[in-house]
Amino acid sequence: MFDVTKMFDPALTSYKPPKSSAYASWGDPGAISLSGGYPDPEYYPWELIGKLATEALAKDYPRILAYGPSNGFAELREWVAEHSKQNGVEAKADEVVLCDGSTETMSLVARLVLQPGDAMVMEAPSYSGAVSVFLTSVAHVEQIPMDEQGIDIAKLEAYAKERKASGRPLKLVYIMPNYHNPLGTSTTVERRKELVAMAQKYDFLILEDDAYIEFRYEGERLPSIKAFDTDGHVIYTSTFSKPLAPGLRLAWIVASPVVAGALSRLKGSSNMSANHLGQAIALAYCKEGHIYKHIEKMNALYKMKKDLMLKTLEEHMPDFVTWTKPSGGFFLWLEIEEGRVDGIELLKETKGKVTYRPGDSFYATEEGLNKLRLCFTFEPAEKVEKGVILLAEAIKKLAK
Amino acid sequence: MFDVTKMFDPALTSYKPPKSSAYASWGDPGAISLSGGYPDPEYYPWELIGKLATEALAKDYPRILAYGPSNGFAELREWVAEHSKQNGVEAKADEVVLCDGSTETMSLVARLVLQPGDAMVMEAPSYSGAVSVFLTSVAHVEQIPMDEQGIDIAKLEAYAKERKASGRPLKLVYIMPNYHNPLGTSTTVERRKELVAMAQKYDFLILEDDAYIEFRYEGERLPSIKAFDTDGHVIYTSTFSKPLAPGLRLAWIVASPVVAGALSRLKGSSNMSANHLGQAIALAYCKEGHIYKHIEKMNALYKMKKDLMLKTLEEHMPDFVTWTKPSGGFFLWLEIEEGRVDGIELLKETKGKVTYRPGDSFYATEEGLNKLRLCFTFEPAEKVEKGVILLAEAIKKLAK
Repeated sequence: MFDVTKMFDPALTSYKPPKSSAYASWGDPGAISLSGGYPDPEYYPWELIGKLATEALAKDYPRILAYGPSNGFAELREWVAEHSKQNGVEAKADEVVLCDGSTETMSLVARLVLQPGDAMVMEAPSYSGAVSVFLTSVAHVEQIPMDEQGIDIAKLEAYAKERKASGRPLKLVYIMPNYHNPLGTSTTVERRKELVAMAQKYDFLILEDDAYIEFRYEGERLPSIKAFDTDGHVIYTSTFSKPLAPGLRLAWIVASPVVAGALSRLKGSSNMSANHLGQAIALAYCKEGHIYKHIEKMNALYKMKKDLMLKTLEEHMPDFVTWTKPSGGFFLWLEIEEGRVDGIELLKETKGKVTYRPGDSFYATEEGLNKLRLCFTFEPAEKVEKGVILLAEAIKKLAK
Repeated sequence: MFDVTKMFDPALTSYKPPKSSAYASWGDPGAISLSGGYPDPEYYPWELIGKLATEALAKDYPRILAYGPSNGFAELREWVAEHSKQNGVEAKADEVVLCDGSTETMSLVARLVLQPGDAMVMEAPSYSGAVSVFLTSVAHVEQIPMDEQGIDIAKLEAYAKERKASGRPLKLVYIMPNYHNPLGTSTTVERRKELVAMAQKYDFLILEDDAYIEFRYEGERLPSIKAFDTDGHVIYTSTFSKPLAPGLRLAWIVASPVVAGALSRLKGSSNMSANHLGQAIALAYCKEGHIYKHIEKMNALYKMKKDLMLKTLEEHMPDFVTWTKPSGGFFLWLEIEEGRVDGIELLKETKGKVTYRPGDSFYATEEGLNKLRLCFTFEPAEKVEKGVILLAEAIKKLAK
């Protein structure tokens, strides 16, 4: 009997999804969804997208419908380079690579620099999509806890030192500095500088995932980690999924010329180039100034929903539950005092009523089942409020 | 000094592009292009694409603009399953995975089943895109020559036997059975059956790339290799790049449930899913019957251009040049008697006048510089004719 699974990459097949995934019902259409990291679907600029697609095809269809450069359309890369300046990133268009979504930026970087037995570091907790990308890579994944400033820099240095001594040095550190997924909090400027200094000292790369940077509701815009990079230790990525739409699958990388060149070649031999119609739509959306207007509109809406979620939590959650207070992004992070509520029981209790992302999705180990990521952007305000109340009721009901 | 290239995957960085690539000028806008494997751009259904995009968004934008299943839209997978029946492939929608272009289908299969030190086989010559995907994979690439029926089956068996004895068995054989790129010829039905029997005997997988199947100008439609597969040894792929447009980056895989499931997971952790707007456009294009009408129209045009290219070759090429006579696809393959013309000199001589794809792009080794792939679909008829005449003049001028 032919067993094809014996041929499969063991890194892929040995990957075990988080325990909660057998119980989570976050596609449940009958429940209020605080789970996915989605924009508010009522405000997708869908008519505009159709119009921009039609106009772009009329103007430029021989290019849009053909094969094209593996790093993407030059004009869109130029826009990204210009747009990056506000985050302190100085880059030329040739240092930009357009990709089919953020997941692809991580997957390409992992494939470029991680060899079997190499180590990479993530924050604990870290974005669930990144956890599954890196856990299915050939590398060893180490998660390092966070303090109030960001990733624990002393623990990171200890780990870098340990790996260096072992002869298999740390290669890559994945950081989400702004409005962290799932925490909702941001790394301080001081910690950003320390991270670059550490990368230079131990010669690892930092993969800076800045997916939520534009969704700022309070406070100043902080310079990115890449802004402090003087010699190519930082690979910066961000995405059109949040300020435009996830379904277009479009994100970008900004990296040193040699890294951008290698990623572009790898992108080419992976799937040729990012889809052209998405690129053409994004180009018109950016060049005609729609992007910043849309962000401004959405930020007013999201700030209102974020404040409403915080207020509802204050009013309804028992005192053994705590949560972060984000000043941007899509999420906040809720912790139930250890031993009070069984995480699997809570999933069963809330089934069909309200969904959230169980905390163990954000860890490479089995921890996190008493933690929850709540998204405040997707549902309309009244459902954000009702969802939190339903969740609070379930927690109180199960509490020991 | 930080040298990031030391971190790079050696399989990627050790890849050397073909010798001719330093001289080939196939993006040259001043030259007649017989080089790229492009549809005729005058006939891209661009107005229809804009219309279908706008209609699909109006009807279904919350799904199209959001994240979605990693194997793609169920209705489009159902269409693919139904469409595959005419090639003798019986598959359910769950055995289909939608990908961002054909290159991605190959790249995902390579990543799923090829471990360092494994072997894979390609035809000699084989599609240049596939050559670069597999040469940058971790596997050893062996090219096996073709006879009049397809890949030399005796040589393939000898190689499979040799690898089996070595303890690192042959894992994958990449075959393009219909209107082969670059040859333009097709594998016989008998050889297709022999390939499946061989895969079963030595337990390797066949990756069947059927990109050109719909572009049939003479003769009957042959059953695919996958049609003879009884136990999951064949992974079938085809693409929307030719019957719709390359720029949408959309292709599909049909495989056994276990392989399709694993490829879908790998696709998910590589870039989530194929771009949704492309999927929505393709779905309407297929469901509303545009696809078969478009193919019918294009086949009449392409047959005329193919016949014109053959006639012009007959009239203008010297007698030391031979070529294939395709009954479908986009290409024919031209061979200049060894020693008559220096391939690099021919590239220099034709520069700015006519472009073609130099033969060494289709080999993993340095051979092939006296061979040329000519594409007859892209340019209008008068330029197809003129391009061949210019090429014949250059060959005659340089001939020893």
